[in-house]
Amino acid sequence: MSRWSDAARTAVERCRLLANCTEEPGRITRTYLSPPMKEAYALVGGWLAGAGCAVRVDAAGNLRATRWTGSREASTFAIGSHLDTVPNAGAFDGVLGVLLGVALLEDLAGRALPYAIELIGFAEEEGVKYGVPFLGSRGVVGSLDAGLVERMSSAMRDFGLDPGRIAEARLPAAAFGYLEFHIEQGPVLDTLGLPLGVVECIAGQSRLRLHFDGHANHAGTTPMALRHDALAGAAEWICAVERIATEVPQLVATVGSVSVEPGASNVIAGAAHASLDVRHAFDEMRHGGVRSILEAAEAIAQRRELSLRVECCLDQSTVAMDAGLTARLFRAAASEGFRAHRMASGAGHDAMILAPHVPSAMLFLRSPGGISHRPDESVHLEDVEAALACGSRFLADLESDYA
Amino acid sequence: MSRWSDAARTAVERCRLLANCTEEPGRITRTYLSPPMKEAYALVGGWLAGAGCAVRVDAAGNLRATRWTGSREASTFAIGSHLDTVPNAGAFDGVLGVLLGVALLEDLAGRALPYAIELIGFAEEEGVKYGVPFLGSRGVVGSLDAGLVERMSSAMRDFGLDPGRIAEARLPAAAFGYLEFHIEQGPVLDTLGLPLGVVECIAGQSRLRLHFDGHANHAGTTPMALRHDALAGAAEWICAVERIATEVPQLVATVGSVSVEPGASNVIAGAAHASLDVRHAFDEMRHGGVRSILEAAEAIAQRRELSLRVECCLDQSTVAMDAGLTARLFRAAASEGFRAHRMASGAGHDAMILAPHVPSAMLFLRSPGGISHRPDESVHLEDVEAALACGSRFLADLESDYA
Repeated sequence: MSRWSDAARTAVERCRLLANCTEEPGRITRTYLSPPMKEAYALVGGWLAGAGCAVRVDAAGNLRATRWTGSREASTFAIGSHLDTVPNAGAFDGVLGVLLGVALLEDLAGRALPYAIELIGFAEEEGVKYGVPFLGSRGVVGSLDAGLVERMSSAMRDFGLDPGRIAEARLPAAAFGYLEFHIEQGPVLDTLGLPLGVVECIAGQSRLRLHFDGHANHAGTTPMALRHDALAGAAEWICAVERIATEVPQLVATVGSVSVEPGASNVIAGAAHASLDVRHAFDEMRHGGVRSILEAAEAIAQRRELSLRVECCLDQSTVAMDAGLTARLFRAAASEGFRAHRMASGAGHDAMILAPHVPSAMLFLRSPGGISHRPDESVHLEDVEAALACGSRFLADLESDYA
Repeated sequence: MSRWSDAARTAVERCRLLANCTEEPGRITRTYLSPPMKEAYALVGGWLAGAGCAVRVDAAGNLRATRWTGSREASTFAIGSHLDTVPNAGAFDGVLGVLLGVALLEDLAGRALPYAIELIGFAEEEGVKYGVPFLGSRGVVGSLDAGLVERMSSAMRDFGLDPGRIAEARLPAAAFGYLEFHIEQGPVLDTLGLPLGVVECIAGQSRLRLHFDGHANHAGTTPMALRHDALAGAAEWICAVERIATEVPQLVATVGSVSVEPGASNVIAGAAHASLDVRHAFDEMRHGGVRSILEAAEAIAQRRELSLRVECCLDQSTVAMDAGLTARLFRAAASEGFRAHRMASGAGHDAMILAPHVPSAMLFLRSPGGISHRPDESVHLEDVEAALACGSRFLADLESDYA
């Protein structure tokens, strides 16, 4: 029994309880500005008020709770994650990060701290409702698109928000740091057998679409040597994508969608359209990977006499976490006896939006089986204890700056 | 100017004229039992009546025209092809074969023959309307499914047919042979630079569906080494299908359709479903090809830890054309100075349905560019002349049996 076992159990139980705040009975689906979001706020807000925090919903719809110090001028450290979910989600993605913050605030209840803590339950991270992710954190850093706010204004008003006051959602100027706990949503920690990971950066991302054009022809009457099969070309390229990504350490490249025209079993494919998603912690490695992958596509298209068109949809740079906070987080874990794995996050997180505005750090908890965005998403209780121990030590360590 | 240049030009012009009998203005679409079919029958029936034929529409809806000899007991030779089209068709698929028969009957007009000739314009070959091909020729050999006739009965009655008399559509017992002219619909003759092909068989066909199941996972958080990507497995297999088919002479194998689940650009494919179409003139070669292709799929699935499910949809044997008639056709072409290419048909044709019931032969005309089932489908006038010369010589040669 560690000092954190009760708090960890409570955090997990609260995640399960929040799973009942859903738009779809029997599944966890909780999107931005929905009534179940309000129910979740009532529950989490209640726990935070119980821990002595001032609770409000900001103009962007985020749940905000502040633990003041004696002085209102004190600088503020922010802790957060998101409370919305994907459709048919698990119980821990985002939610656990918020509940770990709640647990730390509860643990601090009796203690004086030289800085204020603000807990943020972001209202929108997944991008389900409006097709744009990170709306909650964008509101907090003041980068919400005005046109989008206009589009959302009626739903915002229904939720009790005033879109005209959106600027009031911004993080206080006195904020000096941000910490986000989150489940890894991948298999790296589970494969290494480690409970915790310290995120050094959130990997940059390229998204492209490739269009291979050949000649649709009769599958029975066209000899193999006379074909210009767009799908065969795309298939050869998909194999090349996998090979190139496997050869470059830490590079991931994915073809997740393919469509074929005309798509009949007895007609050679005249056209094949494929998506490409490439990520790496180092932008130059990612760009190099994309270059190799496109060169392979061009060589394949040329040899097969297919035409190739490449569409670039996204080229987002890697976002580094703050080196100082990240080192503190790593040390805090070590002090508690945990070897945290230094890693890049392949997925985007609210910390990516906050990092350009406030020094930010992220702690990952192992995802058993690497499973996420599914009802069987889970977390080990002892990993939750480890995260709480590490977080508590991290907050205590921040005090040393005031010594 | 050959003896057949006028007749060839007329046949091509008539194909263009029949293109106006369509369900879709601006495109050629003429399906079974449709009003445009009636218009086409009026035109073709008029030309046949002008050539001295008795014209009727049989109980299955086919256009039938008989050129009687002096004796009603004389044996009958059948010539035919189809008058229906795929949607957005070219002008020559099927139609040209019927018009070549018309031209030969016109040419014979003044001459006595020891056998009767029956021309059949099949009402349904493409399978567009009811999802089942060869309905016209199935009616002629008495193999139309009773349930299907029941399903079609209302449309048949609207067309003026009596479904109860469907048996009357059968080929006369005195029929001793069948000849079908058809455009190749493939690039073989065009690539060889030859106008004519003699079909030795209609290739057998296997159709299967393969289902690869892996693990859907986050494209950003799952390292390459920990993936079970169903689409990457399917892609490797598609490359193997192409390689195996290329290694076996005359084998064709096609993956014409692929679908991916969930099919999102940022999610590793959890499942990939692919079609497979394999054809060869020799059934054992086709079965061997299918076996190799499935062994490749199993090896790929096993190495990648994917699960594989194989569904067999069709295993249709090769149908041989009649050796005697085919030899006569080849000799007739040679006598007229044409080296006809002996070949298998990779596509199905009405001759495939008739062959088990009456000795059958098929003559292919070159398809420029191998193009068919498209508005730019075409034919060379000199190839039409060659086919007419060959067909005329073939019919004359049949007389020698009566000498």
